[in-house]
This record gives sequence, C-alpha cells and structure tokens, in this order.
Amino acid sequence: MYIHTYIIIIVICLFVCLFDYPPSPKTILGEIPDEEQILPRKDYESLDYDRCISEPYVEVLEGMDNKKAKKYEAVHWMMVFAIGVTVGLLGLFVDFFVRLFNKLKFTVVGDSIEKCSDKGCLSLSLLELLAFNMTFVFIASVLVLIEPVAAGSGIPEIKSYLNGVKIPGIVRLRTFLCKAAGVLFSVAGGLFVGKEGPMIHSGAIVGAGLPQFQSITFRKIKFDFPYFRSDRDKRDFVSAGAAAGVAAAFGAPIGGTLFSLEEGSSFWNQALTWKVLFCSMSATFTLNFFRSGINFSKWGSFQLPGLLNFGEFKCPDGDKNCHLWTAVDLAFFVLMGVVGGLLGALFNCMNKNLAKYRIRHIHPKAKFIRVLESLLVTMVTTIVIFAASMLGECRDLSTPTAHNTTLAGSEDINSTIRQFFCSNKTYNDMATLFFNPQEAAIHQLFHQDGTFSPVTLSVFFFLYFLLACWTYGVSVPSGLFVPSLLCGAAFGRLVANVLKVKLGMDIYSGTFALIGAAAFLGGVVRMTISLTVILIESTNEITYGLPIMITLMVAKWTGDFFNKGIYDIHIQLRGVPLLEWETEVEMDRLTASDIMETNLTYVYPHTRVQSLVSILRTTVYHAFPVVTENRQNERDFMKGNILISNNIHFKKSSVVSRAGEQRRRCQSMKSYPSSELRNVCDEQSAAVEPSEEGEDLLQQMLERRHAPYPNLYPDQSPSEEWTMEERFRPLTFHGLILRSQLVNLLIRGVCYAENQSSTNQPRLSYAEMTEDYPRYPDIHDLDLTLLSPRMIVDVTPYMNPCPYTVSPNARISQVFNLFRTMGLRHLPVVNAVGEIVGIITRHNLTHEFLVAKLRQHYITI
Amino acid sequence: MYIHTYIIIIVICLFVCLFDYPPSPKTILGEIPDEEQILPRKDYESLDYDRCISEPYVEVLEGMDNKKAKKYEAVHWMMVFAIGVTVGLLGLFVDFFVRLFNKLKFTVVGDSIEKCSDKGCLSLSLLELLAFNMTFVFIASVLVLIEPVAAGSGIPEIKSYLNGVKIPGIVRLRTFLCKAAGVLFSVAGGLFVGKEGPMIHSGAIVGAGLPQFQSITFRKIKFDFPYFRSDRDKRDFVSAGAAAGVAAAFGAPIGGTLFSLEEGSSFWNQALTWKVLFCSMSATFTLNFFRSGINFSKWGSFQLPGLLNFGEFKCPDGDKNCHLWTAVDLAFFVLMGVVGGLLGALFNCMNKNLAKYRIRHIHPKAKFIRVLESLLVTMVTTIVIFAASMLGECRDLSTPTAHNTTLAGSEDINSTIRQFFCSNKTYNDMATLFFNPQEAAIHQLFHQDGTFSPVTLSVFFFLYFLLACWTYGVSVPSGLFVPSLLCGAAFGRLVANVLKVKLGMDIYSGTFALIGAAAFLGGVVRMTISLTVILIESTNEITYGLPIMITLMVAKWTGDFFNKGIYDIHIQLRGVPLLEWETEVEMDRLTASDIMETNLTYVYPHTRVQSLVSILRTTVYHAFPVVTENRQNERDFMKGNILISNNIHFKKSSVVSRAGEQRRRCQSMKSYPSSELRNVCDEQSAAVEPSEEGEDLLQQMLERRHAPYPNLYPDQSPSEEWTMEERFRPLTFHGLILRSQLVNLLIRGVCYAENQSSTNQPRLSYAEMTEDYPRYPDIHDLDLTLLSPRMIVDVTPYMNPCPYTVSPNARISQVFNLFRTMGLRHLPVVNAVGEIVGIITRHNLTHEFLVAKLRQHYITI
Repeated sequence: MYIHTYIIIIVICLFVCLFDYPPSPKTILGEIPDEEQILPRKDYESLDYDRCISEPYVEVLEGMDNKKAKKYEAVHWMMVFAIGVTVGLLGLFVDFFVRLFNKLKFTVVGDSIEKCSDKGCLSLSLLELLAFNMTFVFIASVLVLIEPVAAGSGIPEIKSYLNGVKIPGIVRLRTFLCKAAGVLFSVAGGLFVGKEGPMIHSGAIVGAGLPQFQSITFRKIKFDFPYFRSDRDKRDFVSAGAAAGVAAAFGAPIGGTLFSLEEGSSFWNQALTWKVLFCSMSATFTLNFFRSGINFSKWGSFQLPGLLNFGEFKCPDGDKNCHLWTAVDLAFFVLMGVVGGLLGALFNCMNKNLAKYRIRHIHPKAKFIRVLESLLVTMVTTIVIFAASMLGECRDLSTPTAHNTTLAGSEDINSTIRQFFCSNKTYNDMATLFFNPQEAAIHQLFHQDGTFSPVTLSVFFFLYFLLACWTYGVSVPSGLFVPSLLCGAAFGRLVANVLKVKLGMDIYSGTFALIGAAAFLGGVVRMTISLTVILIESTNEITYGLPIMITLMVAKWTGDFFNKGIYDIHIQLRGVPLLEWETEVEMDRLTASDIMETNLTYVYPHTRVQSLVSILRTTVYHAFPVVTENRQNERDFMKGNILISNNIHFKKSSVVSRAGEQRRRCQSMKSYPSSELRNVCDEQSAAVEPSEEGEDLLQQMLERRHAPYPNLYPDQSPSEEWTMEERFRPLTFHGLILRSQLVNLLIRGVCYAENQSSTNQPRLSYAEMTEDYPRYPDIHDLDLTLLSPRMIVDVTPYMNPCPYTVSPNARISQVFNLFRTMGLRHLPVVNAVGEIVGIITRHNLTHEFLVAKLRQHYITI
Repeated sequence: MYIHTYIIIIVICLFVCLFDYPPSPKTILGEIPDEEQILPRKDYESLDYDRCISEPYVEVLEGMDNKKAKKYEAVHWMMVFAIGVTVGLLGLFVDFFVRLFNKLKFTVVGDSIEKCSDKGCLSLSLLELLAFNMTFVFIASVLVLIEPVAAGSGIPEIKSYLNGVKIPGIVRLRTFLCKAAGVLFSVAGGLFVGKEGPMIHSGAIVGAGLPQFQSITFRKIKFDFPYFRSDRDKRDFVSAGAAAGVAAAFGAPIGGTLFSLEEGSSFWNQALTWKVLFCSMSATFTLNFFRSGINFSKWGSFQLPGLLNFGEFKCPDGDKNCHLWTAVDLAFFVLMGVVGGLLGALFNCMNKNLAKYRIRHIHPKAKFIRVLESLLVTMVTTIVIFAASMLGECRDLSTPTAHNTTLAGSEDINSTIRQFFCSNKTYNDMATLFFNPQEAAIHQLFHQDGTFSPVTLSVFFFLYFLLACWTYGVSVPSGLFVPSLLCGAAFGRLVANVLKVKLGMDIYSGTFALIGAAAFLGGVVRMTISLTVILIESTNEITYGLPIMITLMVAKWTGDFFNKGIYDIHIQLRGVPLLEWETEVEMDRLTASDIMETNLTYVYPHTRVQSLVSILRTTVYHAFPVVTENRQNERDFMKGNILISNNIHFKKSSVVSRAGEQRRRCQSMKSYPSSELRNVCDEQSAAVEPSEEGEDLLQQMLERRHAPYPNLYPDQSPSEEWTMEERFRPLTFHGLILRSQLVNLLIRGVCYAENQSSTNQPRLSYAEMTEDYPRYPDIHDLDLTLLSPRMIVDVTPYMNPCPYTVSPNARISQVFNLFRTMGLRHLPVVNAVGEIVGIITRHNLTHEFLVAKLRQHYITI
C-alpha cells in the first residue's frame, strides 16, 4: 500500500510539473506561494570572514615580523599541498573500491545471465543482482543513518558553507567517514548516482579538518600566529579542499579552482586563488600518479585525467573532411540547449515536489523508513535495468569497430559491450548501456559510432530520467553529475542519430552526445563558469569551449525561466539563508534603514557580570554592540539646535535616529491594511521581548526571574515600562563583541572589582581567546558560583573596535555588496552622528526578506 | 659617439645587474635607495568603481523595473559580444598583415641570399634586409611619435587601468590606431618583439570605446539607464576587452578571463566574469572562423587556436614507452624554474636600468631621437641576425623528419627550415631560428627533434636575451611574450639536448623546451594563475598543468627574491600608484588615522557660488566632504562630559578628533630626529595651504586674490590666522561630492537665491549629470559672468550621501581590503561620533607611502 502511494506520488509530481508551466509570474506585489511558507526555516549562523582586530589580535600582530610571516606562509603552502594529496588519495580509494565492487557484481551476474539465457533461469540472475545491489545500498543507507548530513551530493551544503553559512556537522570527521564509505556502496549498488558530488564534499571536509588536526594533535609544532583557528582560515581551506575534490573527480584543476571561486563568494584573493589552484593540481596529479602506477604499472607517468573523463574526441586519422563541429552545428547546439534547459527544469520541478513530500512525510517518521525507501528505489532500479536489458535490440558487432578509444580504466571500450540475450555475432545495445558502470556507458555514448537504435536511446533516456530524479534525495550519498551527463548524452546521441541517419547530415556524433550531456547537466545544475571549464578540461579539447559555453548559457537561461538550479532548490528547501550574487535592481529602492533589525540588545564598555549573564541567558543574538548612551545628543537633536551650519538648516531627516526610525516603522504598520504585515509587526514586538519568542525562551525567562543574580540594573536592558523614547535612546557605537567572546571572558573570569581600576583585569592572549574554536562553551556551561555578580567586565580590549559599518541611507546594493564580499556576520548601521541605529545580518539580506520588505515599501508609499 | 656611449650603457647595465646581487635587503628602517626618489611621480587619478547613489541616480532607479533591467542586461550582452567579435577581427587583421609583410620580406631576402651565397654578394642581401626592416620600424616609430602612449606592450598600462588608475590617453581611439598599426610594422621589422601585449592593449581599448561609441553616435537608441557612462562600467568593459585580447592572441579564452580577474582587482562578480568569458570565447572563435576560412578555405570550421599556438605535443604513434613527462622530470623542471627565475631577474634588472637611462637621457630630448634609437636597435638586430646566420651549423636534413607538426599558419613546420649557406642535403640551424617569424622559431624549438646543436642554441639564447632586453622599451609597440618564450625555449631545448645526448636520458625534448619557455617567461613577467592557464590552453594539453604550474611558481619565487616583474617595474618607473594584492602583515601596526590625509577642504550642504568657485580654483582635490560644523560636540568633548556611561568613563582616546590627531602628528614630528620626516612634515604644511604647492597653484592663488568674487565668508575655507583648534574644528560628515559634479552644477546654473527656499533650485537628471563623461569641464571653463556670486548651491541632492567609511582605528589591512575590493576613489575616515577626521585615497595606500609611515611609526614609539 505504502509503495503504491509512493509511486503514485512520483507520477503526480511529473504531472504537476508538466501542467504547472509556466508558473505564476513572481510579482513582487503578489502573494508568496503558500508552499514556500510551510517549509521550515531553521536559524543558521553565518561564518565570520572578517577578522576581529581586538587587542589580543593586535598583540599577535606586534609580535609578527616578516620572517615569521614567511614561515607561516610556508606552513600554509604545505597544508594546501597536504590537502591536495589527501584528496587525491581519497579519489584513488573511492575509484579502486567502486571498480572492485562493480567488477565483482557484473562478473558474477553477467556469467549467470549468459548461462541462464539458454537455460531459462533468468529470475535467478535477477535475484543475484538484487541481492548484490540491495546489500550495497543497505550499507550505504545505514551509514547515512549514522550521520544524516552525509546524504545527497553534499554540493548544496558546501555551497552554503562557502557562501558563509555554518551548517552543523557539515565538515566533521564522522560526516567524512560516512560519506566516503557510503558513496562506494551507493554507486556499487547500481543506483543512478554519481560519486563526484560526494567527492567534492569529502574534499571540503579534508580541507576543513587537516589544518585543524595539525594544530590540535601536533601541539608541539606551534606557531605564534594561530591563524588556522578562525572561520576565515577554515573557509579558505574548505574552498581549497572543495576545489581539490572537483579536480580529482573530473581531472579539472582549473575548473575546480573556478568552482570554489564561483561558490566561495569572497573578494578575489590572489594569493588564495593561487594556493587553491596548487591544491587542485596536487590532487589531480596525486590521483594520476597512483592510478597510472596501479592500473598500468607505469609508475612515474601522469597521463591519466580524473576519475571521470570523457575520452578523446578526435576525427579518425586520414579523414580530412571530418570536423568535430562546424558553424552550422552551433544552431543545433542552441536548440539542444533549449531542450536541455526545459528537461532540466522538469527534472528540478519533479525532484522539488518529491523532496517536499519526503520532508513532510518521510523525514518525520522513524529513521528505518528512509532505509526502506532506499531499498525500494534500488529494487525498482534493478528490476527496470534487468527488464529493459531484455528488451534491447540485437545489433551487429562489426559496427562499433569504426572508432576505438581507451577507457580511463584499463579496459578497452569494446570490452564493455554486452552480448546478453543476443546471438554470437550481435550484441545487446540496451544492456551495453545499463549493464555497465555509468562511466563506461558515457564512453559508449560519446565514442561508439552507430551502436544504438533510436528506440533504445529514447527508452534509456526516459527510464534514466525518471529513476535518477527519484533517486536524488534518498538517504544515500549520491552525486548528480554522472546521471545527468548520462541522461543528456543519451538525448544528444538521439539527436545525432536523427540528424545523421534521417537527415543524412555530415556530423560527428560524439560531439552531439557531449553537447546533449552539457545541455541537460546545465539545465539541472545551472552552474556557469566552473561547469564550462570543468567540461572543457574533461574533454581535454579547448576547441569545444564555444559550443559548451553557448549550450550551457542557453540551457541556464531557459531553465531559469521556470525554476532554480537543483542545488539551489535543495538549499532553499532546507531554509538556508543563502546570499545570491547580487540583488535585483529593484531592491535598490530600499535603504539599509528599511531592512535593519532595530531592536538591539547591547552592552556597555564596562558591564557587571550579572548583567552580562542575564543578557546572555535571555537573548539568542550572536553579537552585541558595545555602546555608550548619548542623552545629550538626543536632547539637542530634539531641540533642533544641532546640525545647523552657515545659518542654513541642514535637512534633519538625513540623520536617522533609532527612536525616529521606530516611529516611522510603527506608523507605516498602522497604515498597512493587510494582516500579513501585522505578522511582521508582531514578530518585531516579539523580538523586543526576546523572552517571549518560544517555549524554550520562556523557560529561560523563568530561569532568569529566579536566577541567583537579580537584575539590579534595570537600565541595563530594556524593560516593559519604558516609553519608546527611553527604549530607543541614542547609543554611540564603539564596537562589536561576539557572544562566544563574552562567554569566554566570563568563564575565564576576566573582570575586576568595583573599587579597582580596569587595568587590574586579567588579560587574555589571542590563543586563549580562540582556544575553544570552533565549539565555544555555552553560557549555561558557566559555573555561576565562581563569579561574583557585582564584578565588572571591561569588554573593550576584546571587542572588535572597528567593524565595517554602513549608513542608514545606504542602498541595498551597497550594503549587500559590502556584506557578501567581505563575508561579514554582523553589519552595524551607524548614523551620521555615530549612533548605532540597527544591525544587519545575513537574514536581513536574503531574497525572501528583501522581497517582503519591498512589498511593504510599495504599500506604505 | 652617441652610439658608442649607448652600447657601453647596455654593457654596464649587464654588469651592474650581475654584480649588484643580492641587492641590499629591503629593511623597513633602512633608507630607500635614492634612485627610487629621482624618478618622477605624477599625480594619477583613481577610477571610481563605487556608484555614487545621489538623488538623480535614485530617480533613475525608481524608474527602473525588472523589464527595463532585462532589456539593459540584453544590451550589455550584445555589447560584450560585439567587443569579442571586434577583437577577433582585429587579431585577424594583425595576423594577416604581419604574415604578409614577413612573407614579402623573407621571400625577397631569402632568394637574394640563396643567389648571393654563390655569387658572394651577401652584403647586398644584408642591405636589402636592412632596408626592409628599417622602413618598417621607421613607420612603427613614427606612429608612436603621434601617440607616445602606444609605445611598449601596453600591459603595464592596462594593468594600471584595471587596478583603478586613470592614465591619460590610454583608452583613446588614437592610441588604438597607432598601436594596432604600429605593431604590424614593429613585428614585421624584425625586431625581437611580440604582438601579444599590443593585442591585449588594443582589445582593452575596443572594450572601452565600443560601448561609448554606441551611446554617443547612436543617440536614438537610448536607454533610460545610462549605465555605460561611468567609470564602473567602462572598467568592466575594459576588462572584457583585455580578456578578449588575450583570448585572441593565445587562443586562451579561460586564460584571458583569469588574466582580467587577476589584474582587475574588483570583487568576484559572477555576472561580469561570465560575460568576460563569453567575450573571450567570441574573440577566439571569430578569429578561428575567419582564419580557418581564409587560410584553409574551411569555412564554418573552428579548429585553429589563437594567433600564437604551440602546436600539438604528442608522442609518436605506436611508441608505447614515450611519455611527455615523468615524475623524475619534475625535478629538472624545478631546477629550470630556478634558472628561469634568475635569468628573468637579470633581464628585468638590465631592462630597468636601461629604462631609467632612457627616462633620464632620451625622453627629455627631441622626439626624433627616439626614432633614431629604434632604427639603431633595428640595425644592430638585423646585422646580428645576418652575421649569426652565417655562423650556423650545417646539419643533415634527414634528422628533422622524425616528428611532423603543422604550424598555425598554412605551412608545414618543415617549410620553415632554412638552407642558407649550406649544401643541398643540409640546412643551417641558426638561420632556421633567426630567419623565420618568431612563432615559427618557437615551433621549431618545441617540435623538431634533434635539429639544433648546443652551440647554436647557446649563441641564439645569448644574442636573443640581450637584444630582446634592449628592444623592450624603445618607442615602438612591442610585446614581450613571444621573445621571452623563444628565449626560454632555446634554453629549455639546450637542457633537453644535454640530458638526452650527453646523459642519455629518455626524455621528450619538446616538453623541456616548453618548460624552459615557461620558466623564462615566468621569471620575467611573474604572472601566476593566468599565465599558467594561458600556457595550458596554448598547448591544448591538460596534462602539462602540473609541470607548468610548478615551474612558474618556482620561477616567480626565485625572481621575487631579487626584483619585481617587468610590468611592475615599468609601472613603478612611471610612478603609477598601483595597489598591490594585499598589504604586508607588518603594516597592520598602522591604523587608518596614521595614514589618512587630515587637511581637508570641505563644503557645506548649502554653499555660496563664490565660495565654491574659490575652493575649486584654489585646490586640486577631486572630492570634497560635505560637512556641518559641530561646535557643540567639540565643546562637550573638551569638557569631557560626553561619552560617559554607567558612571564609568569610557576611554576618550578611542574617539579620534581632527584637532587631537593633528596635535599628535605634530608632536611625533618634533620628536623625530632625522630630516627625512621633516620633509613629510613640510609637505603636510604645504598641503594646508594648497595654494603654495607649485608655480601653477601660486598663479591660481594670485588669481583668487584679485578675483571678481572676494571671499566674503572667511570661515568657508581655512585662513592662515586660525588657531589649530579653529582649523581642525569637528565636522560632522554627511557625504562626498566630486569636483566634476560641483563644476557641472555651477556650469548648469544649479543654485537658488538667498531669499528663496532650496526647493526652487533647478534639478538635474542623471543623464545631465553624466553627459560630459569622461571629460568633464574644468572650473576655468566656467563663465563667471553668468553666475551671481551670492547665489547658494544646495549640493545635497548631488552628493554621495553614504560612501563607505572607516573608523580611524581600523587597521591597514581592513582599510586596504575595503578600498581595493570596492574600487574606491576616496575613503572618508569617520570617528565614533560621526565626525570626519581624514580622507584616504590611493596615494595613502601605496606600498611606498605605507613603508614611510611605518618607519615613522617605529621611530615615534
């Protein structure tokens, strides 16, 4: 019964997608489709790419001369090299075992089929195949149960991480083990999944972990400049690792570098890019070195590309009229790009609906349900493969000899031809595609001339499309590159068949298969620069640059007309606050003051321990502005006798104050008729008393009321009795301190007694400040009995005294650019007289938030 | 006599370089070598990459919906495509004519030599060759006289431009014509110069000019969003054009894209990069399309790479033991990298000394001296070529048949073998290298097996090295890539000869020649990522990635130990304030307040016309902060009753004020013993009265004293009688207005009468504000009789109300990163209470300035 509904759901997804096009135009003023709102949005944190130049850091700087800097630089290079080599070895490991498992499986089952096709015991062969596949997938699925983050391709997670979002568990050792081991079994299990995505994820984890490992395990090798222990450096290493993953997977070091540049949003950092390229090169060539040695016994040679390669596209020697492609073909490539984009959009739409169904109905249930689902997918896939192979056409064996090419492995391409159910001199074209590792099938489609009948190709494409779509999202490590390529190659080959055989055109079929693969892959993933370069490098043929680029461009444009790329869809479904490349032009109608968070919880430069504890326990903010109150200025401002020059009154409105801003917002809310915005308003007032935000916080509030530290300083945090003017009094901004830093100060007892000077406060070094990175203690770990509540903490040496700030009048594009480029976590909004009026975080800059604010803006004007 | 001294100078340069190593270590505290100071430092302006979001711009934004944005985007793509195609056609043009001239020359002279070597009339042949070469070079040199900026490779200029420096005349049509035509003749004239650098420069000019042309000439095709008319967009197009230039020159579209990324410093802009790649692809494939058609009559085919290509590196068919390179070879490549770095450093040092000599002794003289110099170089080069060819070894013709490869042109590589002075069955190896276009010689070195004797290679390398070094810098358009590659290839081939013949190693000579070329080129130009990719793409062989990268890395490191890359040297000699990639770690001991310019000339939001005119006439600043005075705040600050919170005094020192800062500076100057800093101090006081800065300014000051507009508002600009407190009174910062904008407002009569409200002031649209871009009128063009001096200008709608700002306590790395990444022109330094305390421009962030400031910092502490 369960299975029935499930299959029905898939068919429904297909139909929903087919008839839902074109989707309702995304008008700014229109309602957000309700489906988007049902999905959960967790609170993800940002990574902090900007350095906090506090006093301990400056101390480190002072002790840093150029010699030490060079030594540190050398260590950095070594680390990058180590990451590259490790990722290369990882690729070798994955490749070796996948090959081993596949060989085992196909040899056993193949023999059985050969035997049984005469004897008529085919069901036995099917059972054998099922047993193999389901065992493998069961292992993969159990591994994912151990670490659920290891499911899927990992590219959405890495993309989010490089975008600056901290996703829990994404770069941990356990994830690495589950992912790297799991992908072996999911690929060997005959699922329509690739190993490239998981390779990239694993590479990224190596990047994140290796330098940390070095600094944790080998404490003796100590550097006075503990650069590695910060979000900034970790993210840099992760981008190197991810690039190495791409490089090892596709043999595309430049493509890998561009991948991490494209996804890792930060400013163009020359030195880093050079290191990333070096890391990618190391990975590629480590892999090649060992593979050449192991597979060909040619130690010391480096001529093999990455795990996935496309073989050599070349005209047969002596044929002077043969062209890989001509100007006329370009027109077909554009058309194929359009079709690829449409197919990709369909794929994404179906997969999105399926993923939503999974989130709602499968994920909440017991975990073993997910294993069952994987097994179901495997079973269906296996049966389909088996059944389809029986329907394959028997074709003459003499045909495929026209063009020979060597596979990446040690076998010749002809050795991957399957003769199942066919008489001696013929072979089964469907089985050749289905009963082989996917890489071999891609080679067949790219390089065998005239081997596949149009019917076979159509059936193959259709089945593969559906099954791959179904598979992406089950609980196994599963890449999407290879299935997409294979699917697209079948489509391209079909086009080539039609053009060559039916229309009699003089074309090179391999090129069309390649372009079909590019078109479909482009339509699904919608990557641009890096994908172009990866494909060019995989073919090792620069002349394919233009057709690949044009195809990808057209496919992306076509697909973008309907929906987002598959990775972005999954990121969105997870509620990750990803920042796009740039904001839409329309958003520039908003200013920083429109989007900032105005309800601030702040600390003073010198604060009592009890107040800090109370603030830390009752709020969830990750950073607090350090401010001084500026009553004088507010009074002047109210009286209007400031900002007068040359006897001409300067427009007062250009100086935004917190109270004024709040007044404006409340007014705009009153004038707004719909109930929707009132929610926003309610949310805001909820944020004022953060203690009311949820059950969890309610608990905290209660705790606070009975805390051993009664809040003796009511002016410390806003109270309910305050008037708006009191609550939003002007605050001069002096710096920003992180929650983790405050907790650290409290735990290490950095404070001084009331009757002492703040110079008596113990000083922490930079190493002490970052010792617990990346898992800082929580405020609830703090043993309150060790602290005297009336002691005072001077936070000024530890705060970031000069974070980047923006003016409240700055336009969104400016704010966005600064925030994204510099990889900020908190961006204080400071007005013309130095008062903080709000804070902007990643959540204030997501597309959804901006759209909501823009809608509000249109309504109020 | 002149010639003698000249040649002696070259020899001296060589010796200076040889014995000057290692140079005196660059200690921060040491004196700057005096030679650096003799060189002139002109005042270059910055480009403004940040958008000025003034009210007219906001109006444009308001009128901009997503549909218009899409239309605009489409135009942008079309422009980029047009640039690509134009650059491709330009490449075709250059290639065609160079080929034609060369063919003409070599056919005539070759025939003459063949005849004369029997008859003994060789001096006649030499005269013929001399006549050809000197005519060609004379034309090239005269073209450069017309537009001196067209000299050289153009890469230093483009690098500066992309770095954000406006260099006069660098992207003008006249420069384009002189450069594109000149390079034909300088290459055809037999000089040791390449056409790649000029191609890149020409491409950049096409990028800068084409979109402007569209908007000036075809006014009817008007867009409401005149994006193209700003520094930002021009710079984007220039980077696309430069990338297209690289792509056309080397057939390396990805390398071109990376080149413009590497040199164009701005943040990683996804959309732009994608367009740049598209532009590069268009250029490459336009060129290929036409070349395939014209040279091979294969219209519609695209299989040829760029102008310069390296042919196909491949093992002979059937030879299974042949490897392009092995792990063992890598060790030799590292060594070759070291040697290449050393040779490159020597080359750069010699060329630097030569360039200095030219700047001091040749450039100040009459212009025809430069032409004479070019002719002299041509004569010497020609004679050397001729003489060396006579000394070449005669080798057996049967050898070179081992490996055949086709040249980029239509000829086979064997057709470029020269038999001069040799008997029938032998050929002259030296003549084969010298009596061919340089591309053919590169092919010979890369692909002919066992053709060249070690002696020939050594002599060739030595002569080529000296002559190329001498040539780079004469007044002709001259690239450096091809000569460096040729020189390095000879070196690499020499290594291969030694290893293969003497040591009997089994190596592939072509790889060594390629690595030698990479090593030398890397040692000279010190480019990293882009050069790696360009070379990989030129060889069309991904497997060369690792060796090329390692060689370039080693060569760069070795070379950097001695001096900078050749382009950076020439940039430095020109005094361009280039910003490096990042600052040294040591610089972080300085803060923004240490390096900022504290002497501000400011305007008020509402200013009288006469004051504006006076300010514009007496200063040279390009931007003025718009401020209001804040006497109240200063008084409070002096009394110390502000910034007190929670009854605990917050460190007052953290709020930097202008007066305080000035006091600090003056004190640090007094305590400083050396005379050097006093110069800095004098400079500063000179800047306070900018009217004393030079003769030109003195003139202006006089003009001002007798101006028809007496300065009735002495408080408007600082006067000599003021006390320091008065001069450095606190100013609340409201925005930044450019000189060009102020002049524009005055010229268009944007002002209102004293008795009116500022709302009566006429409003300018964005189009009117940018109409005169890029050549805005000067203040002296203003007809003063049309303006009433007592009218008031409200500058607030036209100023940039929220430029990025930094805190005075921000560390240099932070400031630098913001400035460079965002491509700023002026960065106001604003303290914690919103007062402007200084301005940072490009000149405050150059390496030299920072080093000077750091030295000062060390002395005062």
